Amino acid sequence: MKKAGVVGATGYAGAELVRLLSAHPGVKLNMLTSRQYAGSSIAEVYPAFKGVLDLVCQPFELDRLCEAADVIFIALPHKLPMGFVPQLIKQGKKVIDLSADFRLKDAAVYEAHYEPHTAKDLLPEAVYGLAEIYQTEIEKTHLVGNPGCYPTSALLPLMPLLKAGLVDSKHIIIDAKSGVSGAGRSLALTTHFCQVNDSFKAYKIAAHRHTPEIEQELGNAAGQPVQISFVPHLVPMTRGMLTTIYCDLREGTSAAKVKECFESYYKGRYFVRIGSEGQSPDTLNVKGTNFCDIGFKIDTRVNRLILIAAIDNLVKGAAGQAVQNMNIMLGLNETKGLTQTPFPV
Amino acid sequence: MKKAGVVGATGYAGAELVRLLSAHPGVKLNMLTSRQYAGSSIAEVYPAFKGVLDLVCQPFELDRLCEAADVIFIALPHKLPMGFVPQLIKQGKKVIDLSADFRLKDAAVYEAHYEPHTAKDLLPEAVYGLAEIYQTEIEKTHLVGNPGCYPTSALLPLMPLLKAGLVDSKHIIIDAKSGVSGAGRSLALTTHFCQVNDSFKAYKIAAHRHTPEIEQELGNAAGQPVQISFVPHLVPMTRGMLTTIYCDLREGTSAAKVKECFESYYKGRYFVRIGSEGQSPDTLNVKGTNFCDIGFKIDTRVNRLILIAAIDNLVKGAAGQAVQNMNIMLGLNETKGLTQTPFPV
Amino acid sequence: MKKAGVVGATGYAGAELVRLLSAHPGVKLNMLTSRQYAGSSIAEVYPAFKGVLDLVCQPFELDRLCEAADVIFIALPHKLPMGFVPQLIKQGKKVIDLSADFRLKDAAVYEAHYEPHTAKDLLPEAVYGLAEIYQTEIEKTHLVGNPGCYPTSALLPLMPLLKAGLVDSKHIIIDAKSGVSGAGRSLALTTHFCQVNDSFKAYKIAAHRHTPEIEQELGNAAGQPVQISFVPHLVPMTRGMLTTIYCDLREGTSAAKVKECFESYYKGRYFVRIGSEGQSPDTLNVKGTNFCDIGFKIDTRVNRLILIAAIDNLVKGAAGQAVQNMNIMLGLNETKGLTQTPFPV
Amino acid sequence: MKKAGVVGATGYAGAELVRLLSAHPGVKLNMLTSRQYAGSSIAEVYPAFKGVLDLVCQPFELDRLCEAADVIFIALPHKLPMGFVPQLIKQGKKVIDLSADFRLKDAAVYEAHYEPHTAKDLLPEAVYGLAEIYQTEIEKTHLVGNPGCYPTSALLPLMPLLKAGLVDSKHIIIDAKSGVSGAGRSLALTTHFCQVNDSFKAYKIAAHRHTPEIEQELGNAAGQPVQISFVPHLVPMTRGMLTTIYCDLREGTSAAKVKECFESYYKGRYFVRIGSEGQSPDTLNVKGTNFCDIGFKIDTRVNRLILIAAIDNLVKGAAGQAVQNMNIMLGLNETKGLTQTPFPV
Repeated sequence: MKKAGVVGATGYAGAELVRLLSAHPGVKLNMLTSRQYAGSSIAEVYPAFKGVLDLVCQPFELDRLCEAADVIFIALPHKLPMGFVPQLIKQGKKVIDLSADFRLKDAAVYEAHYEPHTAKDLLPEAVYGLAEIYQTEIEKTHLVGNPGCYPTSALLPLMPLLKAGLVDSKHIIIDAKSGVSGAGRSLALTTHFCQVNDSFKAYKIAAHRHTPEIEQELGNAAGQPVQISFVPHLVPMTRGMLTTIYCDLREGTSAAKVKECFESYYKGRYFVRIGSEGQSPDTLNVKGTNFCDIGFKIDTRVNRLILIAAIDNLVKGAAGQAVQNMNIMLGLNETKGLTQTPFPV
Repeated sequence: MKKAGVVGATGYAGAELVRLLSAHPGVKLNMLTSRQYAGSSIAEVYPAFKGVLDLVCQPFELDRLCEAADVIFIALPHKLPMGFVPQLIKQGKKVIDLSADFRLKDAAVYEAHYEPHTAKDLLPEAVYGLAEIYQTEIEKTHLVGNPGCYPTSALLPLMPLLKAGLVDSKHIIIDAKSGVSGAGRSLALTTHFCQVNDSFKAYKIAAHRHTPEIEQELGNAAGQPVQISFVPHLVPMTRGMLTTIYCDLREGTSAAKVKECFESYYKGRYFVRIGSEGQSPDTLNVKGTNFCDIGFKIDTRVNRLILIAAIDNLVKGAAGQAVQNMNIMLGLNETKGLTQTPFPV
Repeated sequence: MKKAGVVGATGYAGAELVRLLSAHPGVKLNMLTSRQYAGSSIAEVYPAFKGVLDLVCQPFELDRLCEAADVIFIALPHKLPMGFVPQLIKQGKKVIDLSADFRLKDAAVYEAHYEPHTAKDLLPEAVYGLAEIYQTEIEKTHLVGNPGCYPTSALLPLMPLLKAGLVDSKHIIIDAKSGVSGAGRSLALTTHFCQVNDSFKAYKIAAHRHTPEIEQELGNAAGQPVQISFVPHLVPMTRGMLTTIYCDLREGTSAAKVKECFESYYKGRYFVRIGSEGQSPDTLNVKGTNFCDIGFKIDTRVNRLILIAAIDNLVKGAAGQAVQNMNIMLGLNETKGLTQTPFPV
Repeated sequence: MKKAGVVGATGYAGAELVRLLSAHPGVKLNMLTSRQYAGSSIAEVYPAFKGVLDLVCQPFELDRLCEAADVIFIALPHKLPMGFVPQLIKQGKKVIDLSADFRLKDAAVYEAHYEPHTAKDLLPEAVYGLAEIYQTEIEKTHLVGNPGCYPTSALLPLMPLLKAGLVDSKHIIIDAKSGVSGAGRSLALTTHFCQVNDSFKAYKIAAHRHTPEIEQELGNAAGQPVQISFVPHLVPMTRGMLTTIYCDLREGTSAAKVKECFESYYKGRYFVRIGSEGQSPDTLNVKGTNFCDIGFKIDTRVNRLILIAAIDNLVKGAAGQAVQNMNIMLGLNETKGLTQTPFPV
């Protein structure tokens, strides 16, 4: 059985990886690293794990990591992963990086939004890990750039329609709403309970770094460059993301065609659930799961298609999709370890 | 001193009217009616009022109401008000109706979205009570159709820009998010705590009855018919509404011009607060107040303007604006009774 | 493989049973009944289950139920179960009733708090399903009265100490706090989001019907009648229950002895986790799990022991413990189907 | 008109003082200090105040403070106030300190729980500012130690009963639950939204520093030393505190006597509202107000009295009571500036 390691195991995405991998029937979770909590058991950091998991967080050391793990998940802030991923790849490891470092194909775009890229050589072979879209490529790669939460929720509904030419690639507007865990476990006034509770606001209006990532993939699907408007908002809840998308319909596109396009594109894909026209997905229904629920409605008077996608930002938007990618990379069924029955409430 | 009455005082909007009118220095709150709670003190229905207000809810009787009140607020579901408003007007009362019955100028539009209108004669003289826009008309009327919460939050940012020709009236998209009190106090699974808490969803996608109301007013501002896409969402919080609007800029419109337009249009208007470009309003900052906070950002790459407005749906979106309208109708300062200092959190 | 049925599958406890049983490796979930939703798929009632479960809710018919299920869970309001449980028992079924009907040994006590008992004959053979306490009896019975959520959280910390004579059975005070799902899915003003959100209150002060159930079991443990004060409170959260208990220490009882008593009594019991002195359990750590986390602290100045227990009211407080009881009744490992890794947040 | 100053104006209690004092008809808010935000307008720190308050936060300088203010509120952590309060008193200022520095009469007790006291000379003249209990003393003093939030909620129900000899002073148990704003605005994992939301826990079990403050005052009321058990809990809400108290009844104490005692003791006191037996106060009803709602129930079987008090921890538990104390010190009506109508929800 393959051995898995999680670098940065004590942030929210890291801990969610620990949750999923520790119960995964196809791999053995064998190494956790944490700078802040090295030496502590993961159950001391997250007491929910008490009596269930007894792994101790290790300081990050490349050699020990490579010894302990065949598949390595990286849940660190961007910039850090590109510093050591090349060595992991050289050692023959399979790597799933949850940061932005290996998502963007064009180093110049990365550098415009982040900082100088120090592992550009790897960009061509890195695969954008949107599992339902790039399965074939993921099967063959050693390096996955795991998608951001916002991009996942925007791309799953949009890409099939763009590929099929059912919607126009101009005038796409993405209005997204995220639970607070997406901001991570670091302390900030913006995640202080009293600033968030019973409150709602936008942030980084048309200035969020997930924008180029979304545009790269929409461009791939449309076959030409795409520019969007993207506004994220913060919802007073822990988990969940709902993304509402507005786009212009190509002539002749009916609700039936939209539904058919989704059903055919996502045929056999367990994690994408398509609703009837006019039904709204609800983050409640995907909480704790790797599902992406997609809804749609044609606003006939203005010939506009409204798409809505709901995911759990920590699962399909991060750790769950990462495990799904691992499954695909290892030749396992993509659903392995990801089929816990959802909670009714 | 004028005497005020509230018909339907025990719903959330009605109770909020009670809160504001009971402390209003310019009128005497003299009559509350409630079908469900007739005979009960308002403090029995809302124990927060204990020791502060001791008015007893009365059954609705037109004669007693007319005897008791010069200004009458109606906080009932649509259809009911049009049944008795004509008599109130005949008796010389000033009426502020919070339902949809007197908001739409075109009876056919009303009937397409609601039901047969039985008081069409009054529609020409009814004034749409968006206080910052229609002050002159409100000063002279006896009948105000008090705007819906969603329209208030959408129109205050959009109308000045349309009037000034700074934005295109095509391609306007309104993505709105509301706290749960907007759904009222009636029982429904959709307002059950466990269905709403830690959850986010859209509803009535491109099918909400506030749409024609918004379009009527945008059409007035643009000087031509306007069609929008409007999607409301439900936020797990009690009070607050944040509305994000996307529209195309007319050529030559800069951020400075947008800001200048707002500042000039809303000069001297206490309840509209304009932010700097890129700042997001937060519902936290308007909770319990009659403020509408407006933010904006130009998405320069696509020449699109993003507008964001935050209000308290029960205050500026309902009871507060109704009191503001009363102030204007009575020749009082519009801020009278509406200047409690906001809560920091 | 045994077949399981759930009567009353669409309330919150019923739906939680569906969640757990549908994924249980040792039984086949074969029948759901629902009066309100007969004919609907459970995934229509709880869209979270879409694509995962496709069982259709049936009307309640005794014969069909007996045909379809060997083990029957009843998640109905009290009074209803006693009407048909005798027939189920006669047919050789194993029954786990989540109502109060078979929890109280003394029919007179039941009748004083509920109503006339129509199946008294079964009371002697019914076993109170507090799994960690009555395992031996549960193994042999056909009828389990599944404990209430409040009693579960109060009894697990108190019973071992009373049995060991470490605390006095007089002066026991139980101050409990529950999430809103404990009130069920029925509509009521008390579960309206706006009445609960950002709010905290007690209810049924010293008058809750779980009191006799708690006292019955404490009396068993103490070997003499016990009377407590019990006050439940409502917390603005969906799942979770935290119960704080105050009792007088017998002379010579140290913190070490308390801890030792717990560790010895619960040795080998997966679902009870004991903290160090002074650590507080947190409902966050047990959400979605069948764990009961127990904390304690000696208030040395007054020689009083403070016990704190945290459970998920829908799992260990209802459906999870019911499945644990089924496991024991069927000779399976008690943890079967109940070991999903907890969520870090 | 007297001038008021707030030292430490940008924490939650400080900002709440700003809210109340800025609208107070009897004083002029003339000086805010803040170490962290010196130079910023208070509306930059709390955007809710935009357009309403334009005071700029100053660095703390004793001379400027004394020049600017006759009445000085101190909303700093303990230890800091005792460093400069003696000088304020020497300059003839009236001082209301919201920290613990001047609440405890016995310096040794203070030092056992906090640290060396450097202004012991002032302790005899400092008055414990529980306004409904110590009005006469407050009228005459220059220095008020404003009570903690937990003590306020515990003492208002308990002290009249102890003074009247209706309850026993032994076996008093105080189980308190607070909203998160009580933890202040500083960043900590314990106030991170994701750690608090949908969660409930105890903290500082029988080890909270408000214990000696409560015991001092209960001792005063009982005429002999009192020792309690006190356990605070954290509720996922911003504002509000509910405290449940258990005590033994003296023989002959009926519910009628308890109610009579409260009504007679609090006769004419606007801010204390007494409920009928068995009614539970709800923090919702006191949110944003200076009210303390008191409920009670006799648990007749065990002859125990259960008291429940609800306050807004930032108002009656901090800033509101401080303003009430100022009113009394200045010879104003105690309700001045504190009578905003409560919110229905």
